[in-house]
Amino acid sequence: MSTMTADSVVQEQRADEAPLGTALNAAFEGAYHERRAAGRALWPSEGMHRDPAMGLTDAREWTLQRLKTIARTGMGHSIQPAESADRDTLIQSLVDFEIISYGDLSVAIKSGVQHGLFGGAIAGLGNESQQQRFLDGALDLTVLGCFAMTELGHGSDVASLETTITYDPDGDEFVVHSPKESSAKTYIGNAAAHGHLAAVFGQLIVDGHQHGVHCILVPIRDESGTVQPGVTIGDHGHKGGLLGVDNGWISFDSVRVPRDLLLDRFGSVDEQGHYRSSIENPNRRFFTMLGALVRGRICIGGGAAVATRRALSIATRYAERRTQFRHPGTDAETPLLDYLAHQRKLLPAIARAYALGFAQNELIDTFGRVAANPGHAPNEQRALETLAAGLKVFNTEFANASIQLCREACGGAGYMSENRLTQLRADTDVFATFEGDNTVLLQLVAKGVLTNYREVWGGLDRLGMVQASARLVGSSVIERTGAGLLAERLVTTARRKGDAAAFYDRGWHAWMFEERERHSIDSLARRMRAADRDSFDAINAMQDHVLFVARVHMERVVLDAFIAGIDACTDADAKQTLQELCTLFALTSLEADAGWFLAHNRMSDARAKALRKQINQLCRELRPRAIALVEGLGVPAQWLGSAMLDD
Amino acid sequence: MSTMTADSVVQEQRADEAPLGTALNAAFEGAYHERRAAGRALWPSEGMHRDPAMGLTDAREWTLQRLKTIARTGMGHSIQPAESADRDTLIQSLVDFEIISYGDLSVAIKSGVQHGLFGGAIAGLGNESQQQRFLDGALDLTVLGCFAMTELGHGSDVASLETTITYDPDGDEFVVHSPKESSAKTYIGNAAAHGHLAAVFGQLIVDGHQHGVHCILVPIRDESGTVQPGVTIGDHGHKGGLLGVDNGWISFDSVRVPRDLLLDRFGSVDEQGHYRSSIENPNRRFFTMLGALVRGRICIGGGAAVATRRALSIATRYAERRTQFRHPGTDAETPLLDYLAHQRKLLPAIARAYALGFAQNELIDTFGRVAANPGHAPNEQRALETLAAGLKVFNTEFANASIQLCREACGGAGYMSENRLTQLRADTDVFATFEGDNTVLLQLVAKGVLTNYREVWGGLDRLGMVQASARLVGSSVIERTGAGLLAERLVTTARRKGDAAAFYDRGWHAWMFEERERHSIDSLARRMRAADRDSFDAINAMQDHVLFVARVHMERVVLDAFIAGIDACTDADAKQTLQELCTLFALTSLEADAGWFLAHNRMSDARAKALRKQINQLCRELRPRAIALVEGLGVPAQWLGSAMLDD
Repeated sequence: MSTMTADSVVQEQRADEAPLGTALNAAFEGAYHERRAAGRALWPSEGMHRDPAMGLTDAREWTLQRLKTIARTGMGHSIQPAESADRDTLIQSLVDFEIISYGDLSVAIKSGVQHGLFGGAIAGLGNESQQQRFLDGALDLTVLGCFAMTELGHGSDVASLETTITYDPDGDEFVVHSPKESSAKTYIGNAAAHGHLAAVFGQLIVDGHQHGVHCILVPIRDESGTVQPGVTIGDHGHKGGLLGVDNGWISFDSVRVPRDLLLDRFGSVDEQGHYRSSIENPNRRFFTMLGALVRGRICIGGGAAVATRRALSIATRYAERRTQFRHPGTDAETPLLDYLAHQRKLLPAIARAYALGFAQNELIDTFGRVAANPGHAPNEQRALETLAAGLKVFNTEFANASIQLCREACGGAGYMSENRLTQLRADTDVFATFEGDNTVLLQLVAKGVLTNYREVWGGLDRLGMVQASARLVGSSVIERTGAGLLAERLVTTARRKGDAAAFYDRGWHAWMFEERERHSIDSLARRMRAADRDSFDAINAMQDHVLFVARVHMERVVLDAFIAGIDACTDADAKQTLQELCTLFALTSLEADAGWFLAHNRMSDARAKALRKQINQLCRELRPRAIALVEGLGVPAQWLGSAMLDD
Repeated sequence: MSTMTADSVVQEQRADEAPLGTALNAAFEGAYHERRAAGRALWPSEGMHRDPAMGLTDAREWTLQRLKTIARTGMGHSIQPAESADRDTLIQSLVDFEIISYGDLSVAIKSGVQHGLFGGAIAGLGNESQQQRFLDGALDLTVLGCFAMTELGHGSDVASLETTITYDPDGDEFVVHSPKESSAKTYIGNAAAHGHLAAVFGQLIVDGHQHGVHCILVPIRDESGTVQPGVTIGDHGHKGGLLGVDNGWISFDSVRVPRDLLLDRFGSVDEQGHYRSSIENPNRRFFTMLGALVRGRICIGGGAAVATRRALSIATRYAERRTQFRHPGTDAETPLLDYLAHQRKLLPAIARAYALGFAQNELIDTFGRVAANPGHAPNEQRALETLAAGLKVFNTEFANASIQLCREACGGAGYMSENRLTQLRADTDVFATFEGDNTVLLQLVAKGVLTNYREVWGGLDRLGMVQASARLVGSSVIERTGAGLLAERLVTTARRKGDAAAFYDRGWHAWMFEERERHSIDSLARRMRAADRDSFDAINAMQDHVLFVARVHMERVVLDAFIAGIDACTDADAKQTLQELCTLFALTSLEADAGWFLAHNRMSDARAKALRKQINQLCRELRPRAIALVEGLGVPAQWLGSAMLDD
């Protein structure tokens, strides 16, 4: 494209617009394109947007009714008992959440609470009889439920929950109790207004012995909506967004619950009052139960990604039609998208949206493979959890940043609720801290990466470690699987070229991403070995390094996925455009960390200085295809619901 | 502090807490400390916070009533006729807006619309008789007014407004008209519900000649609230925030207005229908009229800064009391603020809040000096407008980023409206694009800087330019005045030390900031001289460079102001703390641009790598004084209105 004049590009693009957008979308959605298209075909789009002026009570009722409309199509129903879960259904549950995220995000989150978390707890932690008794009602919304894990005092540190679930042999019952004010379950969706039954997490105590966190179903309201004795429910009221979700707090005053309501797949109490578990180690048992959270994280990341795509579609379409200031030498005014500053806002964000989308596809692959295979190895589960945590962080922080960017790119119009951007922004805001706080999740990612590292390097003493590293300079310690193998081959070639590699050389990008990751892991591992592991201060002093490792690891994983996604693309035009987008993504990432690459001698001064020019050039070349690029992101224009795009 | 143990620091800090916070606040508020303290004493704090669940209609009514309560104290009244404006009153109008920003921001913006913009238009653009007729009513709220400048089709490009103000000699009247749909005045505060009179900007046409943009008062509603004939008003309804401000659009269908309602201080039509102006050049006349906007920009920047300080105060106080995860080797849990990752979120943000506050003080100085002196030189006006534009950008983008950071730092609690962070975030969001879009304003800053540059280098041909640059390597082309002179002296000393300067050497910081600015201006000026100035593409290709120049110029100005503020501090403990904060601000800025400094050989690899460690160290040292630091920002704890800090 770079040799063509701007006009000829525009003309060529106009003729090809629909096909390029369509082809990009097929490539972008990859193996799940047909499934997503089927979801869009099923989607009841009429009435999908809530009036942003609706007050709390109306918004909650609207959200419930809208969720019922959606649930009637079967969306949200793909939650199966863990034992019989098949790959197709598991994947469908993720795609359902993406599709629901095309509409009001309160509805999506309410579905997440009801189907994913409450239904997921029954399906994942309950026994067969509990699944038969409760799962259908959870899916068809006849029993509205809560997922009561977080407490006022403990959010990230779930292992320290204070709620107790004590077995009382006299009544053959459990007593669910909130010993302190800080034990109240907080920010619980479906609690303030609609929930009947709560899946409550607490410390299981049997005969004076504590067995760690377990989950029990507690009736909190009867069918008429009356709160049950011993249960106190509070309303969190107005929030920064998601007004349609009725978040509340729940406190228990020695509430008695029949023994058969303990979700006891991983730990049960029998008629004689004996505790049994198939998993001996309480720590491993706890993490196995928490494994059910992984779907929630994948959904939140996927929903945030859809919100981002909606915002980018709105802002890009607006920037194409909105003009400001006369174009020199003409009578016409200049479309915003013709300004370099505007291109540099939107196009790198679009490129990153593509990158994260390809990575999300790979996460879905991994989830389907691992979760559908009950016999999967622990390291597969760890890889899945690491990827899910990392992409949840990347997708949600990018949603916040990019939707805000889109809002500002639309000026005053962007601030009017009828144009949808501020509501998207307000609703996704909390995605950064729920289903795992992003800062905590990044530490989980780093832990996963370092565990991997230890496995590769296990058994070496500190000296051996350093020697091994020294021997391996120039080759890779990054363990790559699946999508990453292609990138690995490109790196090998790029290493041979060294600094002579072109700016658009994918191998050079992959090599740089790998170097950044490898060096930062090596140095962190060395610091950790040298540190006193029992000293809070010593470990705390590395926290920023830990977060950096998590970020650069994920950034490399995302690039690998983009490379694999391009490789799988069969349309020549789409492939060419994806190549340019991938280069834009890679160079933007390199530019943001130019200080690191220079200080660590991975890039020459001249190359670092030239990055900006290369990025500007790519923006100019991609600009005429901007509408096709957002078409490729898969949000149908007629669903954007943005008044300023109406005429 | 660095040689003390953490415990002794805590104890020392506990004993000194109030004094340090008080002393910091006195230094931080500088020459305006007493005036601000007086404003706080006057502030009617009861009922200062609006219930975030309030709907549109109630919120608008609440905001109007609250503004009346505030106006009764005299706040907002310091708007005087331009001819008689004195320094004290000019400055008081800025401080009033800061104080009002301690409360609901809809009220602050409504005051800004009513007092600052509507009142300001009458005071600044009206003749003596118009001032006598309308100014009192604008200030005491008996006449509610609009500032109708922005149109649907033209926001940033105000010179191209479409509304016409045509003189009709037959009726000796003006005809105000919106020729197209895009001519409607949009996003106008006080339009949707409350306004009686609008200050309308449009193209003045007399006898077929167009004289450029002028402002006329148009009655839009009578006393009973009935919309006047020919006027159509629409309601923008729900917005991303500022729900208490009744923004609407106004369209005019040949509305006839008496001749004496044209605000004609800079351009009038006499009884014979002849146009007269004291300013011959229409372009200069236009910009003189727009000069009235400068106060609005200073206020918006100041209001954003207060919002940021409120959020930082909330998040820091929460991080001090909120614990999570057991502290190794103890039974206690660790306060969030003990974690390095949390320190690195909040402490550099606090340091930047201080930096911007000192710079804002200097902007107030400049405004008082320039605006109170009708005989000021054009370059003084330009310097004022450049500084106001730049600080408006810096304060508003920092408000958005830092309030979001505070929200996330408070987790789920931060998302609950009762804790105030999401409302602050939603309300300040639009500050980034109103009163001048930030991207456009940065270009204005760069233009101001380059004009300065041209004055210094004027008359040199391209070769002469390059030679002059070469000769001056090692000295400065940065023109410094006032607060900057101290920094200039420090730079001179630091240059002699070169790379041997310590990390905390203020001269080294100032030198680096200066180098970044000087080099980027030099290279931009060279590119501009080489480019075809009539080619859109050639100028457009430099837009990112232009924005970079604006940013690094402002960053240097902010550091200069911080240095001057420390110099003026008379309390030894506060001074020491300010020194550490200034170093944290400077190193954070250097770290963010490390790529630039390395690629341009202004910093060694070793130094760039060590920045992170230095910043971490500063965070650790400042952490025990965190509460005093936010006390110094001047937001009384009892005004934070955050439920989670209540007990």
